Amino acid sequence: ELGQFTEDLNKTRPEYVKSFQYGSKLMLSTWIVIRIDGCHFHRFSDVHEFEKPNDAQALDLMNSCAAAVLEEFKDIVFAYGVSDEYSFVLKKDSQLYQRRASEIVSAVVSYFSSMYTMRWNEFFPNKEMKYLPYFDGRAVCYPSCEIIKDYLAWRQVDCHINNQYNTCFWLLVKSGKSKSDAQNYLKGTQTQEKNELLDQLSGIVDYYNTLPPMFRQGSSVYWDKETKLQDDEEGAAGKSRRIVVVRYENIIDAGFWEAHPQILDEKM
Amino acid sequence: ELGQFTEDLNKTRPEYVKSFQYGSKLMLSTWIVIRIDGCHFHRFSDVHEFEKPNDAQALDLMNSCAAAVLEEFKDIVFAYGVSDEYSFVLKKDSQLYQRRASEIVSAVVSYFSSMYTMRWNEFFPNKEMKYLPYFDGRAVCYPSCEIIKDYLAWRQVDCHINNQYNTCFWLLVKSGKSKSDAQNYLKGTQTQEKNELLDQLSGIVDYYNTLPPMFRQGSSVYWDKETKLQDDEEGAAGKSRRIVVVRYENIIDAGFWEAHPQILDEKM
Amino acid sequence: ELGQFTEDLNKTRPEYVKSFQYGSKLMLSTWIVIRIDGCHFHRFSDVHEFEKPNDAQALDLMNSCAAAVLEEFKDIVFAYGVSDEYSFVLKKDSQLYQRRASEIVSAVVSYFSSMYTMRWNEFFPNKEMKYLPYFDGRAVCYPSCEIIKDYLAWRQVDCHINNQYNTCFWLLVKSGKSKSDAQNYLKGTQTQEKNELLDQLSGIVDYYNTLPPMFRQGSSVYWDKETKLQDDEEGAAGKSRRIVVVRYENIIDAGFWEAHPQILDEKM
Amino acid sequence: ELGQFTEDLNKTRPEYVKSFQYGSKLMLSTWIVIRIDGCHFHRFSDVHEFEKPNDAQALDLMNSCAAAVLEEFKDIVFAYGVSDEYSFVLKKDSQLYQRRASEIVSAVVSYFSSMYTMRWNEFFPNKEMKYLPYFDGRAVCYPSCEIIKDYLAWRQVDCHINNQYNTCFWLLVKSGKSKSDAQNYLKGTQTQEKNELLDQLSGIVDYYNTLPPMFRQGSSVYWDKETKLQDDEEGAAGKSRRIVVVRYENIIDAGFWEAHPQILDEKM
Repeated sequence: ELGQFTEDLNKTRPEYVKSFQYGSKLMLSTWIVIRIDGCHFHRFSDVHEFEKPNDAQALDLMNSCAAAVLEEFKDIVFAYGVSDEYSFVLKKDSQLYQRRASEIVSAVVSYFSSMYTMRWNEFFPNKEMKYLPYFDGRAVCYPSCEIIKDYLAWRQVDCHINNQYNTCFWLLVKSGKSKSDAQNYLKGTQTQEKNELLDQLSGIVDYYNTLPPMFRQGSSVYWDKETKLQDDEEGAAGKSRRIVVVRYENIIDAGFWEAHPQILDEKM
Repeated sequence: ELGQFTEDLNKTRPEYVKSFQYGSKLMLSTWIVIRIDGCHFHRFSDVHEFEKPNDAQALDLMNSCAAAVLEEFKDIVFAYGVSDEYSFVLKKDSQLYQRRASEIVSAVVSYFSSMYTMRWNEFFPNKEMKYLPYFDGRAVCYPSCEIIKDYLAWRQVDCHINNQYNTCFWLLVKSGKSKSDAQNYLKGTQTQEKNELLDQLSGIVDYYNTLPPMFRQGSSVYWDKETKLQDDEEGAAGKSRRIVVVRYENIIDAGFWEAHPQILDEKM
Repeated sequence: ELGQFTEDLNKTRPEYVKSFQYGSKLMLSTWIVIRIDGCHFHRFSDVHEFEKPNDAQALDLMNSCAAAVLEEFKDIVFAYGVSDEYSFVLKKDSQLYQRRASEIVSAVVSYFSSMYTMRWNEFFPNKEMKYLPYFDGRAVCYPSCEIIKDYLAWRQVDCHINNQYNTCFWLLVKSGKSKSDAQNYLKGTQTQEKNELLDQLSGIVDYYNTLPPMFRQGSSVYWDKETKLQDDEEGAAGKSRRIVVVRYENIIDAGFWEAHPQILDEKM
Repeated sequence: ELGQFTEDLNKTRPEYVKSFQYGSKLMLSTWIVIRIDGCHFHRFSDVHEFEKPNDAQALDLMNSCAAAVLEEFKDIVFAYGVSDEYSFVLKKDSQLYQRRASEIVSAVVSYFSSMYTMRWNEFFPNKEMKYLPYFDGRAVCYPSCEIIKDYLAWRQVDCHINNQYNTCFWLLVKSGKSKSDAQNYLKGTQTQEKNELLDQLSGIVDYYNTLPPMFRQGSSVYWDKETKLQDDEEGAAGKSRRIVVVRYENIIDAGFWEAHPQILDEKM
């Protein structure tokens, strides 16, 4: 059997077969966003009894995985997450996988998924994973800093809109309405009306703004300087080093980017 | 803050930002191969002390994940794996993710990675996972049955060639040679010479063919009929149902495909 | 000035600039259709007073250009034209321009356009060209003979539908109706009704089938054997050679393809 | 025959056939360069006895066609031509053909080719066109003004290098050397050496810089203000209007772009 390897090899026309491979390359000198979304996470969150409308533990797990992605893939300069979705921004001159879309997307998604499964027990020590979590992803390129910021602002506006809606919806359900009644009740309501409804249902003035920042703002993940205030084994007080941080900030506002020009390598 | 959602939304030009999204679609009516490869698996197999040249447990874990992929993604009709690589063949009229390359590839890779991490303890009950396993993937389309079979034959020939080389290499190392000496020793040797070397180093005639079929042939995963020989709770003897099987067969040979025309939906 | 060439060259980073070039390649082993359409030909045909609904001279010019394209680009095995549109089919293993879409499409369109302009006087000796004719094009791949035939049949069905409609429309206009009245009159009519209308307007039984085949069937262009019936200088009677022919045939019918298996290289 | 249209139409599965169409779209908000090149122009220039190394009439014809392209396609903001090559730059927010690569490239190439053929007699009144000229084209996107300028500078540096080489080559041939001797003579020579050779062969000091600017700089085509110095029928002296100009300028130098900020819509 073994003697006919070479013969077999020629029969299979490896060069011809290989020539079908076709890697779509992402345009040079543009910002790459890898956006990943949970597959069937509606069911996943039901099966694992996530708290509604937001499960802090589940979001912390997502954020922990995103931070690990930034540590593994050094070309990622920023990530923004909300619900079961995360967007990773690669610096515009990244040469990761020679900018081949499928490889970049699949490696990031794979790392994130593997980490999510591995760290489950850390974040849910008393919940067995009954159902395999997985994600899909896609890549989009943006040619300028301005459009990247617009993209991220769009995701944060979406976070606000969904969070406000979902907070209303679950307060209505907890007040005794059926899910379909709650849905009908909210149909067509504007931001202002939903806000008033929130205050009324909760009995708290300006209720929306009392919610945890992570629920309202989503999570931003990036490298930042950490200033050590106390002596430690490795160095003296006052020294700083770069670490990955997870924060809940307003990234629609220009102020965020002015305060962190290093993220998008902007000259200020 | 909340009152300005709509305003913010317009500022971010969501339609414009969305219009950059661009999903490369895979050609209709062609066979799609999703090929995944372990990232940094050389190091991963060292750190986890996989047996060389083949670790049966590690391969069984790969095969178990591949079988799970077939059960989750019903459009996958065949998978072939060797070492830390797996190829999944989707039927040619699949509409999975509307044939968008990044989504298909990332979802399959994500599911596989998540499963690999989850089932680790099952296959390595006494080995802690010290290092996160992850994979990358890519998609290739092939327009005919013939070329798909050529593709798979090419992978199996590669399996033979690598396995023969690696078996020689590790026998030399176990016989006392250094890794670089072993490498130099094998440089330029032909199939026949390596075969003779195997017999001589092992002291066994036709040694290569005594190796387990999984090491020599790689693993083929597909849906097949299981015929029940005995009565069981659900049905009478002789009835059959479709199950995912993992087998170590010669898929270069036309005989395999003639025996399983249902895999590629071939009229025989 | 000249002394600083090399310096200038480095400043322009030619390798970097070149690396943005990105040629979308058409999938190997698939049939490529290049479809070209006249740009602003509605106006072009008005300005040059083409006969309505079909101008035989204008169609002959199109056909003459298409035949020239087949003679120049040997990988084109078939062309089908109707109105200001032409589809060119390249054989499935063509390596023209290494299958780069833009180059193939642009070269075919350019040759066709240039020929159209050059031969205008031949077909319209008494009409000055007042307006520059040009065309756009695109490429589509099809993985099998069956789908290519479906594509061509689709174009011929379209030819019938448009021709029947246009013939009705212009007979109504010639009978004194305004263009918008004619349009309203035909709105929603079925094939059978339009057919009866044609007979009625023309006073001829089965009028549609009395129209020239070129108007009803469109034009098919391909290489065929020409059998010489008489002696000529180059050879004896009965010998044959391959020439490009323009014919008006039913290509929806399987009979056409059975009679010309060489076109799509089909084994019959 | 006609009665079965609808039946035929269904048989051909038009929606399925259409769904293979796949238009590669050029990234939004990036500068598009359409670069066209003459096909087989070496032979074309021989057959039509173009003057070597540069034929002013042939270049004027190219420039005239390029100017016509700018007048037809209003989104083109700049063109640069040398020899049988022309690059057209579309403004970065162009929506021409919804940015589908094949359509944009083919329409521009078609218009250019058709114009070249039509205007041949104007520029070569005494030369019959014996051979059909045609061009191919491709599209490349660039994400910033800086890279577009680098692209154009690269083409102009190439123009200098080729022009210097060709001028040397043809002076050597005119001095009695065979073509292959001339080629060998020039092999490996540097800019400075070729410059000295030019002075020596021509007997003119600084000979290269005495060549017409069109040969040395290539041709730049763009919209510019024309200031009328004299009264004319349409308006008074001193008024200006925008016209397409053809100029021979140094576009490597930043000065050119500073003097014409409107071309790339730069804020200065």
